[in-house]
Amino acid sequence: MRCEVVAIGSELLLGQIVDTNSSWIGEQLAMFGIDSHFQTKVGDNFERMEFCIRQALDRSDAVICCGGLGPTQDDITRDVIAHIMGVELVRDEAIVDKIRHMFESRGRRMTDNNRRQADIPAGAEPIPHMPGTAPGLYCPIGDKVIYAVPGVPYEMREMMETFILPDMQRRSGQTAVIRSRTLRTWGDSESGLAEKLADRIDQLDSIGNPTLAFLASGIEGIKVRVTAKSEDEETAAQILASEEQFLRNLLGDIVFGIDEETMETVVLDSLRRQGMTLAVAESLTGGVMSSRLSDIDRNMEVFKGAVISAGHAEAAVGEDRGLAAARHAKETYGTDVGVAAVLPDPSEGARRGTVYLGIVLGNQEYTEHVALPGDRNRLRNYAVISVMNFLRRLLS
Amino acid sequence: MRCEVVAIGSELLLGQIVDTNSSWIGEQLAMFGIDSHFQTKVGDNFERMEFCIRQALDRSDAVICCGGLGPTQDDITRDVIAHIMGVELVRDEAIVDKIRHMFESRGRRMTDNNRRQADIPAGAEPIPHMPGTAPGLYCPIGDKVIYAVPGVPYEMREMMETFILPDMQRRSGQTAVIRSRTLRTWGDSESGLAEKLADRIDQLDSIGNPTLAFLASGIEGIKVRVTAKSEDEETAAQILASEEQFLRNLLGDIVFGIDEETMETVVLDSLRRQGMTLAVAESLTGGVMSSRLSDIDRNMEVFKGAVISAGHAEAAVGEDRGLAAARHAKETYGTDVGVAAVLPDPSEGARRGTVYLGIVLGNQEYTEHVALPGDRNRLRNYAVISVMNFLRRLLS
Repeated sequence: MRCEVVAIGSELLLGQIVDTNSSWIGEQLAMFGIDSHFQTKVGDNFERMEFCIRQALDRSDAVICCGGLGPTQDDITRDVIAHIMGVELVRDEAIVDKIRHMFESRGRRMTDNNRRQADIPAGAEPIPHMPGTAPGLYCPIGDKVIYAVPGVPYEMREMMETFILPDMQRRSGQTAVIRSRTLRTWGDSESGLAEKLADRIDQLDSIGNPTLAFLASGIEGIKVRVTAKSEDEETAAQILASEEQFLRNLLGDIVFGIDEETMETVVLDSLRRQGMTLAVAESLTGGVMSSRLSDIDRNMEVFKGAVISAGHAEAAVGEDRGLAAARHAKETYGTDVGVAAVLPDPSEGARRGTVYLGIVLGNQEYTEHVALPGDRNRLRNYAVISVMNFLRRLLS
Repeated sequence: MRCEVVAIGSELLLGQIVDTNSSWIGEQLAMFGIDSHFQTKVGDNFERMEFCIRQALDRSDAVICCGGLGPTQDDITRDVIAHIMGVELVRDEAIVDKIRHMFESRGRRMTDNNRRQADIPAGAEPIPHMPGTAPGLYCPIGDKVIYAVPGVPYEMREMMETFILPDMQRRSGQTAVIRSRTLRTWGDSESGLAEKLADRIDQLDSIGNPTLAFLASGIEGIKVRVTAKSEDEETAAQILASEEQFLRNLLGDIVFGIDEETMETVVLDSLRRQGMTLAVAESLTGGVMSSRLSDIDRNMEVFKGAVISAGHAEAAVGEDRGLAAARHAKETYGTDVGVAAVLPDPSEGARRGTVYLGIVLGNQEYTEHVALPGDRNRLRNYAVISVMNFLRRLLS
């Protein structure tokens, strides 16, 4: 099964919007084992859109057209597809009602332009799930198919997940349920991970299911994605659970979470479960740690506060600098835990990239130092993740 | 003049990397008045790369191939272009020396693979500016041309700016110097700006030079880009300066800076010039303001510190909440200025999105409230920009 993506919109060619939709779709197709050899961006121009969609349909089994389904005169994806199918557009009154209802529920009136969004090529069908005011289109052409989805990312994603991916799977004769789980890791390099997992990857290569993939994600660590194919949900879930356990045993505590979990959510959950509160001192990190923590713990129930100032480790040298700052934060907010990541004093002559991590946990004090790469911005972000990971390991 | 971009790399199709290069190139081409009708992504596959590049060359005057110039076996852009040109690859020993020198200066040894990066199709030339270990390629084919640049964004950009854009300009018979300046604005909508500038846009449409473009940039405000064409640098600079002045008069103090200036750099510069220091209280914004300020003022010479805590406006209601928090920050760090953006107390029953801004400047106190859109994350970022913009206006 081959599928191409055609992203539609002059604003994409002009660089006013970066086309993240095609990338996301590409990732999904790869996970479902569907080949995708070309992705094209084209402007809101009838002839050029027709050319791109015909060419894609010619060399693939399925084409996903993304964008150009809005209410304005520029939005002509419907028209181009009808032309390629050799049919007329037919207004779908049920869709008109749906759109009207959406506007009314937001206290606004539907314009005549919005009615155009209910025009469907004869022989095509609206994609059932419709999160916005633009229906997606399912357009079978012989034994091939064009899917059209809006350019609004969340609308596109919901239509892909609820309809298009399952439909392509059906068309490709796959009956398998495909599910994935991502193990999030921090503290080893991609080559280090590859070495630890080499034997397992070899085994899985010969078994064929599940499969593993590495995704390096910079300051978010390295992700290991497990993809399982199975005949039913239950078996897929079992395969994922058993592979997750196997990999956790191999990798140890560099696995900090799965799927949507982040270092912040994991640390905050762990503190919450243990009934502890947290304060941080941010001389180096200057608010980066706080903004990440407060974005999750919005009512500041666990994360009680931060002191941001250049001065709170002035008297200390070496790893004591981190502890002095952590103590200061803990005392200021009267919390159970104080945390800090600080730079060496210039007089220490420490190696470039050295950062001292200090944690005060109840009446215990912990410290370590790390050597971090990158410019100032990356250094700050790496320092935040490093000290949160340090805390995570102490709490587990 | 028409130019197409072909982005090369299987990782782009698999969604492991988002193709921001094509977007940036598209923006530059538009600014230089070069039409770009298609952009294509293709994997590291000889036949498919050949197909895409030939097709692009067929329908355009110039093709920019981005990626596939690295040292590994996957990197075959050189080979494909040589094949299309009908020539052999020739190793350029001067480039080999350059690459060896780069490795030596970083204390590393050049591998044999890196020598491959010095292979140039016969009849092509390396692009003179070479910021990394991969030379760009200038490959004339009849009266058309293929440019090949590395996928590393800063290497690509430097080659575009120093060689490719000027060369395309020369080819298109343009002798004009094209320069742009961006006015950064905060505090008006795109339609509001368009209304204020409507007469000027009409005038410029008939004059043809300079041109104006709007770029909505979310929490970074709206940019107004002025692009001037002229015969020499001096005249271009004059046109930009005079248009900037004209637009500043029209728009007033919603213009907060130009080009690379951000709200933070402008506010910090203004405080520094006036010899003032700043502290902030972040209950709502939770570190976002601090991280932006400390990213610029790295030694915390102007931005002295922040108090991040849920509690520092507890007793106050209404706009006094903002002032109470701002006073607290100013007193904690003994600064000239204290700043805060806080949410209403739930008991006030204020409208969703209401944020109180408080600023204490010496012995003067200022307050206002704003109604901000968006989810929590956007609200926090908008609140930061709003209060910094409030301070900017007070300081000017």
